[in-house]
Amino acid sequence: MRILGIDPGYGIVGYGVVEKLGNKIAYVSHGAIKTEKGEHFEDRLDYIYNQVNEIIEKYNPELVAIESLYFYKNVKTAIYVGEARGVILLAIKHSNIPFVEFTPHQVKLTVTGYGRAEKTQIQKVMKILLKLNEIPKPDDAADALAIAWCAAVSGSDYSSYKKNTK
Amino acid sequence: MRILGIDPGYGIVGYGVVEKLGNKIAYVSHGAIKTEKGEHFEDRLDYIYNQVNEIIEKYNPELVAIESLYFYKNVKTAIYVGEARGVILLAIKHSNIPFVEFTPHQVKLTVTGYGRAEKTQIQKVMKILLKLNEIPKPDDAADALAIAWCAAVSGSDYSSYKKNTK
Repeated sequence: MRILGIDPGYGIVGYGVVEKLGNKIAYVSHGAIKTEKGEHFEDRLDYIYNQVNEIIEKYNPELVAIESLYFYKNVKTAIYVGEARGVILLAIKHSNIPFVEFTPHQVKLTVTGYGRAEKTQIQKVMKILLKLNEIPKPDDAADALAIAWCAAVSGSDYSSYKKNTK
Repeated sequence: MRILGIDPGYGIVGYGVVEKLGNKIAYVSHGAIKTEKGEHFEDRLDYIYNQVNEIIEKYNPELVAIESLYFYKNVKTAIYVGEARGVILLAIKHSNIPFVEFTPHQVKLTVTGYGRAEKTQIQKVMKILLKLNEIPKPDDAADALAIAWCAAVSGSDYSSYKKNTK
């Protein structure tokens, strides 16, 4: 089963793809969608929407895992990230692929054993878990790989979830 | 010039349409897009996206005015409203219609003379300003009419804005 993990954001959207084969999880790809600070926000949202569509088309995942957002110190930032996450959810919905959500705490706990792990820790762990030659960069992409990993190891019944989203 | 005003939300998205003819502003329509609480959030976002597209197609506005979000007591609510606003902005972007943003404070100040006016006050004022027989309901739709009104009376050069968004 191929799983696409997404770490939502408006400046950088991290993505990571893993393949679950029996009881093994293999690395497929990772990267980041980046938008420019000076551009109109609707153009940035449109770019994110289009890029997520392209990534889904390219890697053809059977499941998408996305980080849920709960805690932001700054409400303005929360709204901006929410806007980006909205168009990401729309792209997933338009692709008809089932998806699951994990809190940052769940993801960190699953891959590092500590729910408040630092970003660099996530990068180091994902390098080891996925047998990579280098630390995955940017950290948003490492987070996305961790989200995909979290979906791969979690025992949720995705087939029933799939049914519910239709 | 026909202007569509949108009051973003995830449970209710208010909309209001006015026509600016010379120095007069006439009422065209108002209403609300409603989504159900129990439904999957991505389905609600998809419904909002599709309905905004339909409203744009039906009323064929030359300008869309949308309320910007800044203040929310609850960060979780801010993220949800942000997600809905993201897909609304995407629908506007996909329609290629220029749009402008106003803060709730600007809208309230413009139509009532008081930046912290109550929702019922906005409803009463919009009934008078647009010569309606009844108070516009729900209050989200009255807000949307106020946003459209705000765009109609403001002196911004929308033609230059249009150029920038392309």
